[in-house]
Amino acid sequence: MTLLTLGKQAKAASYDLSQASTQLKNDLLIAMAHALEAQSEVILKANARDLTNASDNGIEETMLDRLRLTEERIQAMSDGMRQVANLADPIGEVDKMWKTDDNLTIGKRRVPLGVIGIIYESRPNVTTDAAALCFKTGNAVILRGGKEAFFSNQILVTILQEVLADSPLSSHAIQFVSDTSRETARELMQLNDYLDVLIPRGGANLIKTVLATATVPVIETGTGNCHIYVDKAAQLEMARDIVINAKCQRPSVCNSAETLLVHEAVAAEFLPLVAKSLAPFKVEIRGDERTRQLLPEARLATEEDWSTEFLDFILAVKIVSSTDEAIRHINTYNTKHSEAIVSDNYVDTQTFLNKVDAAAVYVNASTRFTDGFAFGFGAEIGISTQKLHARGPMGLHELTSTKYIIYGDGQIRH
Amino acid sequence: MTLLTLGKQAKAASYDLSQASTQLKNDLLIAMAHALEAQSEVILKANARDLTNASDNGIEETMLDRLRLTEERIQAMSDGMRQVANLADPIGEVDKMWKTDDNLTIGKRRVPLGVIGIIYESRPNVTTDAAALCFKTGNAVILRGGKEAFFSNQILVTILQEVLADSPLSSHAIQFVSDTSRETARELMQLNDYLDVLIPRGGANLIKTVLATATVPVIETGTGNCHIYVDKAAQLEMARDIVINAKCQRPSVCNSAETLLVHEAVAAEFLPLVAKSLAPFKVEIRGDERTRQLLPEARLATEEDWSTEFLDFILAVKIVSSTDEAIRHINTYNTKHSEAIVSDNYVDTQTFLNKVDAAAVYVNASTRFTDGFAFGFGAEIGISTQKLHARGPMGLHELTSTKYIIYGDGQIRH
Repeated sequence: MTLLTLGKQAKAASYDLSQASTQLKNDLLIAMAHALEAQSEVILKANARDLTNASDNGIEETMLDRLRLTEERIQAMSDGMRQVANLADPIGEVDKMWKTDDNLTIGKRRVPLGVIGIIYESRPNVTTDAAALCFKTGNAVILRGGKEAFFSNQILVTILQEVLADSPLSSHAIQFVSDTSRETARELMQLNDYLDVLIPRGGANLIKTVLATATVPVIETGTGNCHIYVDKAAQLEMARDIVINAKCQRPSVCNSAETLLVHEAVAAEFLPLVAKSLAPFKVEIRGDERTRQLLPEARLATEEDWSTEFLDFILAVKIVSSTDEAIRHINTYNTKHSEAIVSDNYVDTQTFLNKVDAAAVYVNASTRFTDGFAFGFGAEIGISTQKLHARGPMGLHELTSTKYIIYGDGQIRH
Repeated sequence: MTLLTLGKQAKAASYDLSQASTQLKNDLLIAMAHALEAQSEVILKANARDLTNASDNGIEETMLDRLRLTEERIQAMSDGMRQVANLADPIGEVDKMWKTDDNLTIGKRRVPLGVIGIIYESRPNVTTDAAALCFKTGNAVILRGGKEAFFSNQILVTILQEVLADSPLSSHAIQFVSDTSRETARELMQLNDYLDVLIPRGGANLIKTVLATATVPVIETGTGNCHIYVDKAAQLEMARDIVINAKCQRPSVCNSAETLLVHEAVAAEFLPLVAKSLAPFKVEIRGDERTRQLLPEARLATEEDWSTEFLDFILAVKIVSSTDEAIRHINTYNTKHSEAIVSDNYVDTQTFLNKVDAAAVYVNASTRFTDGFAFGFGAEIGISTQKLHARGPMGLHELTSTKYIIYGDGQIRH
């Protein structure tokens, strides 16, 4: 099946889906959750094929773990679909309605985006997560997963489509690109006539390729070079706990911290304190010259370290002379994701909140909270690091657009 | 000056500008308005150079008219800047604020986009309009106008920059690309490190080039293949007035109508009525076979006519058998801009409002109302025909992004 056909089918399906009642969408999401559970054996069998291929190809264990499905993980996928069914449906909300000087009544109504493309890597759970979120918001979706998860993704989409085939809606509402070649990925990124938006989910290289290649509108997600700034007025034990949490709780995710900035007035006391707590996690410290005077075992940080998302037990450390210097460093090197100050000083915290350019700016909390669930959105399709359309964790609302509906009684323009 | 330098300067300026008070921004906008008036002679002299070059190059009169400045037009430009000064400033608004399960207080604060690029064609008033709207919303702007208006745009930007030079803000907040080559335009479209969004303003070819070339996020504006659907339950005189207004009041603009769809039950009565009123405007009718049975003088419409934005006294006409057929035709051929139904039937008007896929959908009013002023926004940077970020007329609000500000007291993730 060509991408053009997938695109046309998706666009056609999106019109009916955009008109579906919330009740129908919820019933189908619950039916999909049930179908995943009922067919867990088939899913595990397909996943086993992917795992065999992957280990034949010498894929490393962390990658295999991302790829691996278990009964528990399938249960989590279907629970996720039921949770999406339970969320409020934003479609049809009229955000505001007003009367103009010409006596027109204008309403701003929330509508689906239309057709959403998702390009992702090896986690098969993205398939059901993304399908559920797009479906709930009345969007048709075209899923293009990584080739490592091909058989897993294929069976998951087939199961969801079987549920749709028994419904008043078209099974083309959820489609899967079965050709995992780069040429087809490229074609998807330029399917302007049928795709309203493309959301890449994966590592920095994937995002980079999509940004360079796509002509359809893209929402850039994920890369997080996040900083913790420990101010002179910080409670040092709180600061230590936040640094340990932001660096070590789950270093492979985008909202973990990569660089620690410390005010010079507290560096001599704070750095040994935090280094002691980082030691059990075997965190490698890469510090500037001043840091190395206090922590002689630290490696010297290079210019590249300041802009690297390590996603590992590595922490860059720099001593700064002021909150303004910390802000300048952050705005120079960050990826506009999540940034935190630890301080009890009113002026410094306000300055930091105002001047740091990022999707989420924290006072006295770990950057690890940047996600749709922790923010209370009940779901997440990704974390936007661009400023257009959506910024920060994206829930259901970020998968919608608006249209103006205008009630007149014969008005013409003068 | 290289584009990279312009980009760096704009980014640096945008940080200070994002923190400027509303009062300061308004005072400077008013000072800019005053400066334009005070220097109208210099502006007219520069504009005369552009006009001479243009007529030497055999540019046609409609184009010359777009390019031409007069005392009145300069007055309109400075009045426009004062109007923007009078609008409410969206920057700093906190759209909502809530407490999470972890006892974090999260606010969604409205912030500038950062650096906006505007690529436009021959109207010099876009220079001051765009500069004012971007400045008011705390965004640095890089303006790249058409080469026909080079000297006019250059002097306008110089005057605005002189006002900034006497202020606490950087004159790099408003910059101008003095190299009008295609290579430089291309470079601007790919200036991802410094540009947060690019807004093209101009004809279909410009938009197409930008969409194909840009790697920075783009807001697609402008192209309008708009339809009027006259339903079987239409008041025919109201329908006639709306068609005449939508087609003839200003055919060169994007919200004018290009195709008329008429329900078969009223076609025999309505088409001669509307044709009679179109005649004084010398509107060329291109109809389907059924239309030509009623209006034998009409040319036969081609497939291409259904998808053409004529921007001229040409109207495509098609007879349809139902509201659903009208909706299908519209969703197939439209550019998602503005669409209208004329009908007194509740079910048909609701169906049309629900199912037509466009930025603005009207009942019983002319499509000509789709603009930021008629909608009551007090300003307009363009009309978005995409679904991402902004759809329909874009006012100040659409030139902003958000950031989450998060107040904690030591929270870490578990």
